[in-house]
Amino acid sequence: MPKNRDAARANLENLYRIFTVPEAPDSTLGAIDKAITDDVTGFLQNHIVAIERNLEEIEAMFSSAAIPEEPTYVSEYTEFVKENLVAHSVHTAAPGFVGHMTSALPYFMLPLSRLMTALNQNLVKVETSKAFTPMERQVLAMLHHLVYRRDDGFYRQWIHNSQHALGAFCSGGTIANVTALWVARNRLFAPDGAFRGIAQEGLAAALKHRGADGIAVLVSERGHYSFGKAADLLGLGRDNLIKVKTDANNRVDLKLLRDECQRLQDRNILPLALIGIAGTTETGNIDPLEKLADFAQELGCHFHVDAAWGGPTLFSDRYRPLLSGIERADSITIDAHKQLYVPMGAGMVVFRDPTALSAIEHHANYILRHGSKDLGSHTLEGSRPGKAMLVHAGFSIIGRKGYELLIDMGIERARTFADMIRHHPDFELTSDPELNILTYRYCPLAVQQSLAEATVEQVVEINALLDQVCQLLQKYQREAGKTFVSRTRLRIDHYDGELTVLRVVLANPLTTEEILQSVLEEQCEIVQQPEIQSLLRQIEELCVGQGCDGTTAQQQRKCCSAGRT
Amino acid sequence: MPKNRDAARANLENLYRIFTVPEAPDSTLGAIDKAITDDVTGFLQNHIVAIERNLEEIEAMFSSAAIPEEPTYVSEYTEFVKENLVAHSVHTAAPGFVGHMTSALPYFMLPLSRLMTALNQNLVKVETSKAFTPMERQVLAMLHHLVYRRDDGFYRQWIHNSQHALGAFCSGGTIANVTALWVARNRLFAPDGAFRGIAQEGLAAALKHRGADGIAVLVSERGHYSFGKAADLLGLGRDNLIKVKTDANNRVDLKLLRDECQRLQDRNILPLALIGIAGTTETGNIDPLEKLADFAQELGCHFHVDAAWGGPTLFSDRYRPLLSGIERADSITIDAHKQLYVPMGAGMVVFRDPTALSAIEHHANYILRHGSKDLGSHTLEGSRPGKAMLVHAGFSIIGRKGYELLIDMGIERARTFADMIRHHPDFELTSDPELNILTYRYCPLAVQQSLAEATVEQVVEINALLDQVCQLLQKYQREAGKTFVSRTRLRIDHYDGELTVLRVVLANPLTTEEILQSVLEEQCEIVQQPEIQSLLRQIEELCVGQGCDGTTAQQQRKCCSAGRT
Repeated sequence: MPKNRDAARANLENLYRIFTVPEAPDSTLGAIDKAITDDVTGFLQNHIVAIERNLEEIEAMFSSAAIPEEPTYVSEYTEFVKENLVAHSVHTAAPGFVGHMTSALPYFMLPLSRLMTALNQNLVKVETSKAFTPMERQVLAMLHHLVYRRDDGFYRQWIHNSQHALGAFCSGGTIANVTALWVARNRLFAPDGAFRGIAQEGLAAALKHRGADGIAVLVSERGHYSFGKAADLLGLGRDNLIKVKTDANNRVDLKLLRDECQRLQDRNILPLALIGIAGTTETGNIDPLEKLADFAQELGCHFHVDAAWGGPTLFSDRYRPLLSGIERADSITIDAHKQLYVPMGAGMVVFRDPTALSAIEHHANYILRHGSKDLGSHTLEGSRPGKAMLVHAGFSIIGRKGYELLIDMGIERARTFADMIRHHPDFELTSDPELNILTYRYCPLAVQQSLAEATVEQVVEINALLDQVCQLLQKYQREAGKTFVSRTRLRIDHYDGELTVLRVVLANPLTTEEILQSVLEEQCEIVQQPEIQSLLRQIEELCVGQGCDGTTAQQQRKCCSAGRT
Repeated sequence: MPKNRDAARANLENLYRIFTVPEAPDSTLGAIDKAITDDVTGFLQNHIVAIERNLEEIEAMFSSAAIPEEPTYVSEYTEFVKENLVAHSVHTAAPGFVGHMTSALPYFMLPLSRLMTALNQNLVKVETSKAFTPMERQVLAMLHHLVYRRDDGFYRQWIHNSQHALGAFCSGGTIANVTALWVARNRLFAPDGAFRGIAQEGLAAALKHRGADGIAVLVSERGHYSFGKAADLLGLGRDNLIKVKTDANNRVDLKLLRDECQRLQDRNILPLALIGIAGTTETGNIDPLEKLADFAQELGCHFHVDAAWGGPTLFSDRYRPLLSGIERADSITIDAHKQLYVPMGAGMVVFRDPTALSAIEHHANYILRHGSKDLGSHTLEGSRPGKAMLVHAGFSIIGRKGYELLIDMGIERARTFADMIRHHPDFELTSDPELNILTYRYCPLAVQQSLAEATVEQVVEINALLDQVCQLLQKYQREAGKTFVSRTRLRIDHYDGELTVLRVVLANPLTTEEILQSVLEEQCEIVQQPEIQSLLRQIEELCVGQGCDGTTAQQQRKCCSAGRT
């Protein structure tokens, strides 16, 4: 069957072709390459957040579970991707996308990312990374220096030390936080006499060795959800992640923290780590790090700072003092894909003690041999891409001063937006921005006044309805796709309960005051929708009811006119 | 100071500029973009493995721990990257780079990766990914289907189910393996009456609840080193990762496995999981999966298959039967950055039971809310890039048949290379390729014969010297940078001990027979170096010594002439 043989040969040639690099830009692959680049450019120049289309319709395009039998032309697939994937992505770089921590990227990240992908280095070992290993070690040292500011001699000794690593480059902040607590756990139960350490003998034997009934991690209730995963994964149990209540400014309440530690001691549970947050995910607040450092020292436990979001504030001469005490942390998480403006998938953890990562050191026969400079012997992950290169590029091209400008501008923008909200008759600021994150809700001034005078039961009822308003408002705005804010649930002290609030993260340097104004304007339009109007009418009735219990008719009118058409 | 104000404004404008997309290809950024692309093309068309330069010299270029104060021009930085990073990377795509699992990429992966980076989606939640979430769910379903082949109704029910996920897309196989064992652990200690489950109460309480003294994972001594990390991380302790010896074909010895389980039972340790390997990292062998499935069923424990390497063998009609029994696994790891030819940083784990991942389910207030389709509620990692798109592209463009061809060619190439080694007078094959991985060592035929007749002590002495030869050989070859093989330590039954061997992975479709021939030729040249010649002379003397104890003079000459100049 020579025909079949010809077909097989043609298949094989096609296969070789896709693995080779196009010599000329006018080759088919070269042309497709250019078309994709142009399409990306088009996408990025488009400043809407998303095209209005519901998820179920999109799912229909991605619903076959069978891997296609036959190959497809790259050009055909590219068309599919443009129509079905790109068109229905979220424009995380749009200046009106202010709801999450994913922002615009500096454009230079794109060609450099492509370079990184093409080199396809694997940072687990020098044999598949060569220069990328020293480069990543330098990035970790730079981050270490940003936080701990040790002298040149220190870095000369440790930066390229084959026995150690100053930190670990991770796929994200979650792995960074897990790594920090893993190190803390293994150091708490280090080898000791006949006990060969928790890494070898396990948690049950470790507790027995210390005569303890458990270990606990303490963090404020604003702590990132990754700590819950870490507590589960590391065998502590979520019960032993103690979530301490915060003060009115979303910072851990030190008095309550002390009480919790006492309770742990009474139950024979060892404190494994105190966690300070430098930029809470939901409100951007910073825990009192100096005082936490003092207390961790008193307890003799690990002090970890989750600065995944707020870490780059250290670049700012003006705002660096907000993080005072961070240099006393045993470990720090910073996400590069957040305020270092690196593409998704880049987190880092650094340790004050350059030998700390020895607690999780591991080796293998074919790589990570003793004495090698392979970074993989000190990471939770195995094979990893050369993403550190993009952090290196950011540090070099933007520079300390460039990052400072970005941080300062973000904080100022948040203050400006907070002022807009404060002065707007229909919105209530629910958390003041300390960094560049704030929360607020739709709550007309008159309702706010009414709430101030209402009974506890009335407050609960009105807030429950306002929660529904907020939830729908956020949903409709997201679906319309012009601008985007996120939402969360937050305990607000003066209402003595949890509220649904809108959350805004202001890290995109292209977000202008006009755009922020338009976010509020759009929300005022959205509340005119019948479903929300019906909720507002119910609130009005409750306010009137409350008015009957003592407020004047004038107060009643004032209370209920706002926010209604 | 108007001058300073002007400077500040200029800084700000520059900052905005780097965040905006160049409108025209002849803009500065457009030109740099093109220059980087051209440089990548040049790099990829270059078929050497690495430039000869020692690591210490490279480290000098990456030794400052201070983040630069001032910004740098993108063009300037690009030059730095080209000269210091790109030039000293490892050409993992070179057809002569046959030592590790990183191979060439299909060219279409580059523009698509760039697209993925530019979109900067975050797969943790729908709000930052939209179409990417259904797309990733489809990829997981496709992989599930590849292994488990459930019917259409099954996938209709589960693929886009908001309560569940068929698997987890990870940064790599390590996180995939950890996720599998985490799920297994949490299912073994599921909530039960007053016991609220290990996720909540922790490992110590869980053991107490079951009246057990520990939990163990069993895998062959060829198991990937990530299982050691998992045992440490999950609180089992490395002692409870039981590494069972293999047979002469590097497959787990079932008799010894049974003995180990008995020993665990005697010590009141529960078997948490049996692990089967489908493509061992060092030798590419496949455990007897059917028999392991039977045994796991008998024990009532989780059966995980680490198919990080060998999983894509399922694409091949011819070789799929080698993995028979894999469809009975509770969970399976497959790395996309290995034999799916996706860039670094893409692993996956799928579960037979579509509800299995509920064991590690978690929620937060601002994302991952109950009922949302956010994939992040079932992953160990948090924020993740849209890498699943590249798996989707591979499945679509290469197709099942294309991958089949790649798999079949790789296995045949390994057999060809094994034959070359078998017929070469200076090399000894130390593991026969079952898939596309093999090991061998430099050991002239006469030395092989001599070893066959030697006493145990002589064998040990000669092998120790051959180990040194192998180690130097691999080192010099890597440093020369023309071709590359890796090395490992392997227990070889008929020598009753561990040997240093060279390891070859044949996944690059551009690796020809001529290139494989040149790998051996280069090694024959390298052994001429004085340091290695000195070792070979010592081996000769030992052989002569042995000859004195009974072999003829002729045998002596034959024994010691090979491999000497």
